[in-house]
Amino acid sequence: MATRQSNPIGVFDSGIGGLTVFKEVVKVLPGEDLIYLGDTARLPYGNKSAATITRYALEATHFLLGKHIKLLVVACNTASAVSLKTLEDRFRIPIVGVIQPGARRAVEATRTGRVGVIGTEGTVKSGAYLKAIRQSGPRVEVFSKPCPLFVPIAEEGLSENEIAQTAANFYLRELKRIGIDILVLGCTHYPLLKRVIRKTMGPRVTLVDSARETAREVLRVLADNRLQNSRRSGVGRRLFYVTDYPERFQKVGEKFLGEKLGKVIEVGI
Amino acid sequence: MATRQSNPIGVFDSGIGGLTVFKEVVKVLPGEDLIYLGDTARLPYGNKSAATITRYALEATHFLLGKHIKLLVVACNTASAVSLKTLEDRFRIPIVGVIQPGARRAVEATRTGRVGVIGTEGTVKSGAYLKAIRQSGPRVEVFSKPCPLFVPIAEEGLSENEIAQTAANFYLRELKRIGIDILVLGCTHYPLLKRVIRKTMGPRVTLVDSARETAREVLRVLADNRLQNSRRSGVGRRLFYVTDYPERFQKVGEKFLGEKLGKVIEVGI
Repeated sequence: MATRQSNPIGVFDSGIGGLTVFKEVVKVLPGEDLIYLGDTARLPYGNKSAATITRYALEATHFLLGKHIKLLVVACNTASAVSLKTLEDRFRIPIVGVIQPGARRAVEATRTGRVGVIGTEGTVKSGAYLKAIRQSGPRVEVFSKPCPLFVPIAEEGLSENEIAQTAANFYLRELKRIGIDILVLGCTHYPLLKRVIRKTMGPRVTLVDSARETAREVLRVLADNRLQNSRRSGVGRRLFYVTDYPERFQKVGEKFLGEKLGKVIEVGI
Repeated sequence: MATRQSNPIGVFDSGIGGLTVFKEVVKVLPGEDLIYLGDTARLPYGNKSAATITRYALEATHFLLGKHIKLLVVACNTASAVSLKTLEDRFRIPIVGVIQPGARRAVEATRTGRVGVIGTEGTVKSGAYLKAIRQSGPRVEVFSKPCPLFVPIAEEGLSENEIAQTAANFYLRELKRIGIDILVLGCTHYPLLKRVIRKTMGPRVTLVDSARETAREVLRVLADNRLQNSRRSGVGRRLFYVTDYPERFQKVGEKFLGEKLGKVIEVGI
């Protein structure tokens, strides 16, 4: 009989960006079964209102609970920023967002106490990183900058194109001038632009990859709740659901994961 | 008593881009009442599937019919490309899309018989421009290129930024090399990038603005159906509905219209 430990982990994002988190979870927990849900019919969330995003996040969580997940990863900064509290109040399984882990890492890593955060308009506007960073390090100064074009640039596979460099120069100019020593990649798409962001910011600025930090948090929460799937020795099963356009998800998703995705199933939620 | 002639014209788009069409309709028909619906909760349509886009278009049309519109303008190239036929089959009011008018103008204007079309991935993939242009001019050669970043660039108010120029250089390189004499702006957002597109393509290429051509078509269809509002002498009423984020629509919309928008109402459809 299936135990709770052998149930899958659910990973939810507005679209494809959460695959950067998915990839990091696979790295630290290769034996776990994973179910990914990308709400591609309604992406992007970054420029939508808090009420609408929360409604979408609730619908996504209901869908994944129907698949008997043991833990939910909200692998979308915008949804984590505006909806995590509502989800935690409403549901009983452990829920891991992508804000807290990156914020904590930034506070640990800063030497100058000047931290930059880049993300979508929704994430930055919500002030969620500011709040999370202040909670871990009350004296840390936070400088935020929305970089809305980074998402479509990553989605279109143009992360290595000159357009990405021009956009990075434009968006990061101010943060460079301010003089930060940590820059949090506060959007799951941004790890794809790491190279160009690193080049633009220079060697003195350390990038915090919230996808990687989130995967570590998932590992910790599973251990704390004794939910690790200890019986499996091989590689876990991976299932991908999207609300629209599975072919596109498959194609772009391979860029994100760096490997074949397998079957992608279209669902209404 | 209100006559059918005094009923409003409905203009529907996935978001804000259709305001370029709205603006042109206002220019040629200043006395008409206009109702705009932007489906901002689910934008953009350009990277979604045909079935999903058609479902959204049907819902939008039902909403506007509830407001007693006498004519519907599908002011979205993607929705026109994939859903116009379904809407025409389903509803009895006159419906004007944005593909046909631009396509016809391109055929009239070309001297070399080599026409370029730029639009979203959805519009280009649908082949709707190719089909519409071939119908008016069977011997015209059509060269299409999706320019997916142009929409977010326009929406973010970066049409005059260096990012727009870098993207235009990248996307239009091939069309320049091919040697077209007409370029159809096959997306309602693109008129905002006219300056940079014109500069990139050079003086020998004529741009066809599908927003402007669509407004002329609306005038013609109203006249043919004796639906013009002849009783009104002043300026018509304008109402704006969006499915999400009215503040953002108001702010960005003013860039599109070049004037204040008045009240923007949020609705569920």
